Amino acid sequence: MPVRDGNKMGIPKGVINRLPLYYRYLAELARQEVEKVSSSELGEALGLTAAQIRSDLSYFGSFGQHGYGYRVDELYNQISSILGLDRAYNLILIGAGNLGKAIASYQNFRNRGFEIKAIFDNDPLLEGKYLSGCIIQPIDKLTEYLANNPVDIAVITTPREVAQDVCNQVIAGGVKAIWNFAPVRLQVPEGVVLEHIHLTNSLLRLSFKMKHSDKIKD
Amino acid sequence: MPVRDGNKMGIPKGVINRLPLYYRYLAELARQEVEKVSSSELGEALGLTAAQIRSDLSYFGSFGQHGYGYRVDELYNQISSILGLDRAYNLILIGAGNLGKAIASYQNFRNRGFEIKAIFDNDPLLEGKYLSGCIIQPIDKLTEYLANNPVDIAVITTPREVAQDVCNQVIAGGVKAIWNFAPVRLQVPEGVVLEHIHLTNSLLRLSFKMKHSDKIKD
Repeated sequence: MPVRDGNKMGIPKGVINRLPLYYRYLAELARQEVEKVSSSELGEALGLTAAQIRSDLSYFGSFGQHGYGYRVDELYNQISSILGLDRAYNLILIGAGNLGKAIASYQNFRNRGFEIKAIFDNDPLLEGKYLSGCIIQPIDKLTEYLANNPVDIAVITTPREVAQDVCNQVIAGGVKAIWNFAPVRLQVPEGVVLEHIHLTNSLLRLSFKMKHSDKIKD
Repeated sequence: MPVRDGNKMGIPKGVINRLPLYYRYLAELARQEVEKVSSSELGEALGLTAAQIRSDLSYFGSFGQHGYGYRVDELYNQISSILGLDRAYNLILIGAGNLGKAIASYQNFRNRGFEIKAIFDNDPLLEGKYLSGCIIQPIDKLTEYLANNPVDIAVITTPREVAQDVCNQVIAGGVKAIWNFAPVRLQVPEGVVLEHIHLTNSLLRLSFKMKHSDKIKD
């Protein structure tokens, strides 16, 4: 397979970005008890071509049948599994400011198996307070916590100045996945995966679209 | 130009996603008083190929000189202008919960010319309180505000149940750009641009990367 977007084994970023769309749309169809769906129908609902959908799915195996399409429940389960949603994840959150509070109280994640197990902050005024069922712990308890509890994902909602330090600390404690909300490009070693919510980039895309709205349709 | 990613005039989404990276890296070089940069140097710093950078920029005109590269200040100004950062924007924010508070207090936007001018919420307990220099106004003042004040961008940080209603209301009031944080796919008419921060999609990309980390490198 070709190497694209700096991606070793050829799963293009566009495919990874579209999988959650497929997943959520199939979840909706399953809720409506729809039994089957064609790639054209999927495409129409999601603003993509049937060929693109077939091409995206081909990275992960062979799905559906010619002339029939896909069984909704089957494809939903397969995409869930591709996305890693066939298991539960233990999360910790570091940074209990406004953004941390917003993330901690966001129930959508918990419903999909992502559970925040502990919350840390360096503000002594927050210590011992409850947030979404967790006691806020001082940041100097983080290493001890990691030594004694399995953690799959660290959510970083600290100010930018301390984000890399916090990131290094959780990686030293064995965490292999970082979900970063701090406005800084974190450095992580090989074998650690990183996903970054970058608010400024999103706002710049919006101003780009405003300026070029005659040339863009999405 | 080819039609790609549902994009009428051929500016691929990948290009739009990379422009903010170029912009921020050039800003950093300009701060360090670096005078020129080649596409190879840009590429190395950003994990892209020189050819990709030249191809991305070619959508917007002719930049740099063969054998010289780019003047940092010139390219920075050109990309700022492409991104629409050669003007200021008036924002309003609807939804003053934790996420709204986090957005309102995020200074990075203001420094780039995006200023929150008014904040609305339907919680009577929040009415009249100050948030980042704005008085929180009741949501039923929104239409009146839009009739009397120029607004470029509406930031929606409401619960999902009311997000589409709020979106319809600001569009009826003449707003042409929506920055949506509510976990719902908003419908907007032709001529209105939309940018969506989708937390769940981001978390699903992270779990995908965890499962396929042997096949992914980014």
